[in-house]
Amino acid sequence: MHVTIKRETDTPAYMQIFEQIRRQILSGELLSGFRLPPERKLAESLGVNRTTVVNAYRKLKAEGLIGSQVGRGTVVLSYPQEDLNSGTGNMQEPVWNQVFSQYSNGFDSCIVKDLLTLASRKDVISFATGIASPETGPIQALAGIEHEIVEKKNYRALLHTPTEGFSSLREAVCGLMQKRGVSCQWDETMLLSGSQQGIDLAARIMIDPGDVVVVEEPSFFPAVQAFKTMGARIMGIPIDDRGMRVDVLEQLLHRYRPKLIYTIPTFHNPSGTEMELERRRQLVELAYKYRVLIIEDDAYGDLCYEGRALPALKSLDHDGYVVYLSTFSKTVYSGLRLGWMVAHKEVVKKFAAAKQVMDLHSSSLSQWIVERFIASGGLDAHIPKVCREYRIKRDTMYDALSKYAPADLIWNRPRGGYYIWCKLPPGISAAKLISKAAERKVVFVPGSPFFSSGQGDDFLRLNFTFAPRKDVDEGVQRLCEAMKELLDNSDHQEIGPDLEINPIV
Amino acid sequence: MHVTIKRETDTPAYMQIFEQIRRQILSGELLSGFRLPPERKLAESLGVNRTTVVNAYRKLKAEGLIGSQVGRGTVVLSYPQEDLNSGTGNMQEPVWNQVFSQYSNGFDSCIVKDLLTLASRKDVISFATGIASPETGPIQALAGIEHEIVEKKNYRALLHTPTEGFSSLREAVCGLMQKRGVSCQWDETMLLSGSQQGIDLAARIMIDPGDVVVVEEPSFFPAVQAFKTMGARIMGIPIDDRGMRVDVLEQLLHRYRPKLIYTIPTFHNPSGTEMELERRRQLVELAYKYRVLIIEDDAYGDLCYEGRALPALKSLDHDGYVVYLSTFSKTVYSGLRLGWMVAHKEVVKKFAAAKQVMDLHSSSLSQWIVERFIASGGLDAHIPKVCREYRIKRDTMYDALSKYAPADLIWNRPRGGYYIWCKLPPGISAAKLISKAAERKVVFVPGSPFFSSGQGDDFLRLNFTFAPRKDVDEGVQRLCEAMKELLDNSDHQEIGPDLEINPIV
Repeated sequence: MHVTIKRETDTPAYMQIFEQIRRQILSGELLSGFRLPPERKLAESLGVNRTTVVNAYRKLKAEGLIGSQVGRGTVVLSYPQEDLNSGTGNMQEPVWNQVFSQYSNGFDSCIVKDLLTLASRKDVISFATGIASPETGPIQALAGIEHEIVEKKNYRALLHTPTEGFSSLREAVCGLMQKRGVSCQWDETMLLSGSQQGIDLAARIMIDPGDVVVVEEPSFFPAVQAFKTMGARIMGIPIDDRGMRVDVLEQLLHRYRPKLIYTIPTFHNPSGTEMELERRRQLVELAYKYRVLIIEDDAYGDLCYEGRALPALKSLDHDGYVVYLSTFSKTVYSGLRLGWMVAHKEVVKKFAAAKQVMDLHSSSLSQWIVERFIASGGLDAHIPKVCREYRIKRDTMYDALSKYAPADLIWNRPRGGYYIWCKLPPGISAAKLISKAAERKVVFVPGSPFFSSGQGDDFLRLNFTFAPRKDVDEGVQRLCEAMKELLDNSDHQEIGPDLEINPIV
Repeated sequence: MHVTIKRETDTPAYMQIFEQIRRQILSGELLSGFRLPPERKLAESLGVNRTTVVNAYRKLKAEGLIGSQVGRGTVVLSYPQEDLNSGTGNMQEPVWNQVFSQYSNGFDSCIVKDLLTLASRKDVISFATGIASPETGPIQALAGIEHEIVEKKNYRALLHTPTEGFSSLREAVCGLMQKRGVSCQWDETMLLSGSQQGIDLAARIMIDPGDVVVVEEPSFFPAVQAFKTMGARIMGIPIDDRGMRVDVLEQLLHRYRPKLIYTIPTFHNPSGTEMELERRRQLVELAYKYRVLIIEDDAYGDLCYEGRALPALKSLDHDGYVVYLSTFSKTVYSGLRLGWMVAHKEVVKKFAAAKQVMDLHSSSLSQWIVERFIASGGLDAHIPKVCREYRIKRDTMYDALSKYAPADLIWNRPRGGYYIWCKLPPGISAAKLISKAAERKVVFVPGSPFFSSGQGDDFLRLNFTFAPRKDVDEGVQRLCEAMKELLDNSDHQEIGPDLEINPIV
C-alpha cells in the first residue's frame, strides 16, 4: 500500500487517503485479506492527525471495501460473489424496464401523437394541430439573410450565443413586452427553445416530488405532463367563460399551499377563453398572499381578432411572482424553435443555469433571423396581417358550425387564439367521433387529454388556423355529418343526466 | 350537495363522487360543518355500491376536507386557520430559496463561465473555449438557401418536424455513421439540440437518485453535472495514455453495479487521449457482462489529424448496450445547435418521448441546412479541410510549448480533437496561473473542474482550434512566461512529493 498527502490541493487529507486506497483496492493492487496499517501508525507516517485516517477508513468501510476482523485488524474485503451471466457467447439485449428511470415512466404514449400523424396526410382536413397556417408565414423574414451571412461573413448567426440569448434580442423582447403592458429590463428576459422549454424548465427548477401544481381544467396537456414527470401532484381548477374560477382557487391555495399555478389567461388552449381583468387582478393578489409563483403561458396574446387583448398577468405583477412565457412559433415560424421568458432576475439566473446543461443555448440562426425581423419592423407589420387572416378563418369555422351542426352541439366564438371549443350533444363521445370523422378524412383533438381528471370526452378542440381557408367549411361539414351519423345510430340507452359543472361551453 | 354519476366515462364512480364533493367544498358551496349523507344512503340514491361511496369519503378524509364527528356523522371540516401574511399593502419578493427545487441546487456557479466571459474579449488570446475556429466554418453550407426557401417556398425548413427529426436527415446520419464503423437504420437515430441534450436526456431517462454513474477521471464536466443533478453518485475511473483503465472498471462494476458508463473514448475531452482498440472491446464486453449501458460521447471522432480514428464503441456493440452521441457543432457550426444519437430503438423511443416535452424538436432550419450540406457532398469535402487546419494549429501549439515551456511542464500530442493537456511543474497551481495568465491576456481552463474528486489543479486544458493561427505561438509564449514568473516567486516550501497516479500526462 502506498499513500501520499499533497498539501497544495483543496482535497482534504482524509479524502486523499480514501481515494488512493480505494483505487488500489479496485485495481487489484491490494488484494482481499490485505491488512491495512493501524490508524495511529498510518497517521504518524503521513504526518496527519489520527482522526484524518479514522475518517478515511470509515468511508472505505461504508463502501464495503474494508472491514474489521477480530485479531487481524482492518483488512480488505473480498467482493460479494454474486451470480453473473457469463458475459460471452450468450449476448442479450438489456432488460429495458430496468434501464429507464422512474422519471421516464411519466411519458405516456399519447393518442395525440397518432392524431397528428393522421393529420399530416395530404387528403385529410386537419383541425387537430395547434400550428400556424404555412401560407401565412412571414417568408420575407428570410429575405436577404444569405447576403448578410455569407457575403458579409456575419458569423454571429452561426456561432455560440450566451445561454440567455443575444443581448440585443433580449432588448428587442423588452419592446415586444410593452405591447402586453409589461415593462422589463433585458436581464429579466431569456430566449428559449420554444415556450415548451420554459414549461419544462419551470417544472425542473421548481418542482420537488409531491409538490402541488394548480392548473386550469382543462389545460394544455404537455404542460401538465411536464409537471407530472417531475413528481407534481396536479390539482385542476374549473374555468368558465370569464377564465379560471379564482374563487375556487383561493380555497385550494389555503388548504394545499401549491408550489406553482400554471395558467393560460389569454385565448386559452384548448377552450379559447380569456380571463377577465378583475380575475387577473385577484389571481396576482392571491399569488402574493399565498406566496405562490404563477407560470403565465401567453403563446396567443398577440393574436387578438377584435379590439385589444387584456394585459398580461405579468403587467399586474410588481414583485416577481409571475413567470411569463411566450413564443415566436405562433407568429413567425414554429420550426425556428424560439420562445422567450420574462421573470425576476433570480428566476432567470436559475433557468439559465439549468438551460445551459439542457441545450447550452437556443439556435443562434433562429435568434438572428427573429432579431432582424423585429428590428426591421417586419414583425409589427406581420401580426395584423396574420390576425386578419385568422379572423376570417375563425368566422368561417363559426359560420360553418352554425350551418351544419346537429342540435345540442354547443361551441364558442373566441376573440383570439387558435381554437374553437365544442361540447358534443349528449349521447356521443369524442372517442367514438374520432373514427367516424377519420372515415370522412377530418381530424380534431378530443377533450379528454386536456383534463387531468380523465373527463372531457364530450368536448372537441377545433383548430381553425392550420387548414387552408377553402377547407374549413368542408371540414366542418364532414365533421358534423359524422356527429349526425353517431346520433342516428345511438340507441339513446347510454344517455343519462349530465348535471356536472361544465368547465367551459 | 349535488352528485351525479356519469356512466359513459372512464372515470371510476368513486372518483366522480370525490371530485364533485371536493369541488363543492372548495368553492364554498358546502360550508364547514355541513353534514354529508350517510354512505349507505348516498349509495342508494346514486345506484352504486356502498363501497364506492366509502372510497370517495376516504379520499376526502385523506385530504382533510371532511371528518367524522361523534353524534353528527361525516361533516365538512373548516380549513386550518394558519397565519397568513396580510396580502395587500405589504408586498414582497418571493422567498427565493423556497421557490426552487432540490434539483435546481445542482447547478453550481462555475469558474468556467467567468473564464469564457474573459475569453470573449477581443484583446485576449483564448485557449479556453471548446469551440471551432470561426474562419474554418463551412460558410458555403448556407449558399443558395435563401433561393431555395424564399423563392421556391420551401416551408419545410421553417415548420415543425417530428420530434426525432426529418426522416431524410436521419437516413443521412446513417451514412455518416458508416465512417465510424457503425451500421444502423434511420429509426435507430434521432436528431438532438446539440449532443449536450443527449447527455441531459440520458440523465433524465436513465438515472434515479442514488444510481451510480461511472465517468472517466478527468471527464467533460457538463456531462458529470447533468448526471449529478438527477441525483447520480459519480465514480471516476482513472485514464492513462491508452484511455480508461478498464481493469479498474471491472472491479467497480462488480461491487457497485452502476447504471451507466459515460465515456469519451476518441480524442477525449479534456485529455486528448484515445482508448485503444483492445480496451474498447473489453469495455463493450463488460457492458454485456454486467448489463450496464454505455453513453459514448463521440464529439471529436471525425477530427483525426493522422491516419484514421479508431472505430466507435458503437461499432463493436451488437446488442444495444451503447448509446452513441455526436454533434455538428465541431465540424459545421455550433450555433445551429444540432447533434444526433444512435441507439437501440427502445432507447430512441424513450428519448423521443422525453425530448417532446423538453423542446418538441430541434430547429427545422438547422436540420434542413445540415441535411442539404451532407447531401451536396459539402460535409465530406469540408472535414479534411478542417483537419488540415487544426493539424497545423496543434503542431503550432506543440512546437510553441517545446520552445517556451519551463522545465518540468509535461504535455501531450493528441492525434485528433481539440485539446492539448498539460501537467504543471510541481509548486505552481492552475488556480494561481489563471490570474497571472489573465494579466498577460491569455486564458485556459484549469484541470480541476474536470475531476469529480476536486483534484486536477496541476493540469491545464489548452484548446488549439479557436485562436487564430498567428496567435497560437504568442499565446503559448505569454502563458509560459506566466508559469515562469510563478515558479520564480515560489518559495518552494509548498512543494511536496507527488507520487499519485497521474490520470494522464
